Amino acid sequence: MSGRTLDHVALVVADLKEAEQLYTVLGFDVRYRERVADQGVDIVGMSAGDETIELLKPLDPASPLERFRGDHRTRLHHVAYRVADIEVELARLSDAGLRLIDQHPRRGAHGNLIAFIHPSSTGGTLVEVCQPPAD
Amino acid sequence: MSGRTLDHVALVVADLKEAEQLYTVLGFDVRYRERVADQGVDIVGMSAGDETIELLKPLDPASPLERFRGDHRTRLHHVAYRVADIEVELARLSDAGLRLIDQHPRRGAHGNLIAFIHPSSTGGTLVEVCQPPAD
Repeated sequence: MSGRTLDHVALVVADLKEAEQLYTVLGFDVRYRERVADQGVDIVGMSAGDETIELLKPLDPASPLERFRGDHRTRLHHVAYRVADIEVELARLSDAGLRLIDQHPRRGAHGNLIAFIHPSSTGGTLVEVCQPPAD
Repeated sequence: MSGRTLDHVALVVADLKEAEQLYTVLGFDVRYRERVADQGVDIVGMSAGDETIELLKPLDPASPLERFRGDHRTRLHHVAYRVADIEVELARLSDAGLRLIDQHPRRGAHGNLIAFIHPSSTGGTLVEVCQPPAD
């Protein structure tokens, strides 16, 4: 349980190029650009050491992500932490009484397996569990 | 400019013990508990590898942080990245045309020097620059 690390921090953004340029000015480098059709987003991942700042742009303007963003050009959306075995972690969280959005993992960016904890169990902040692909 | 790393992700929380317990259940360990009078907050820092999840509880119920939190028990507040020399970084950002809340650094948790970039220059997301104390 110890040595927990973050995987990424995600922002919903109005314009990917604009947001990428901002984080480039701040000194971050682009790690990847990817469309994750399953989640309905284009993602630019900015490298932050072992972590990533994920800039998310919904493909559908009617996406709940766009409603979440509202009038902001960028808005912090979720935090993700990394585990070695996401199925084990989801079972553990469920046993601890936490409500999960995803009972089983789904596909995230670049081969990650991901699942979201329900905000009702985290005081309103969206928290993601993430298992990176085996090398 | 390369090799940029995050320092912490901060959440405003309604109750520090409640939030600390949640992040403990998620697998994070407490790194520090500190009152930062200059910023008017009690902070619990949860260890996330080299980064920290900072749980912030304003000392004053009338704090703008509390208004930001609103009806949520927890709400993502800002992201901080780490630099070796914050004065150099603030000058660089200013030269790049970004508006700063703090022209010069002030004191953050455990000896960090910190400064905030104005949200009008970051699309609405609060971004902090942070210089850890020399060892």
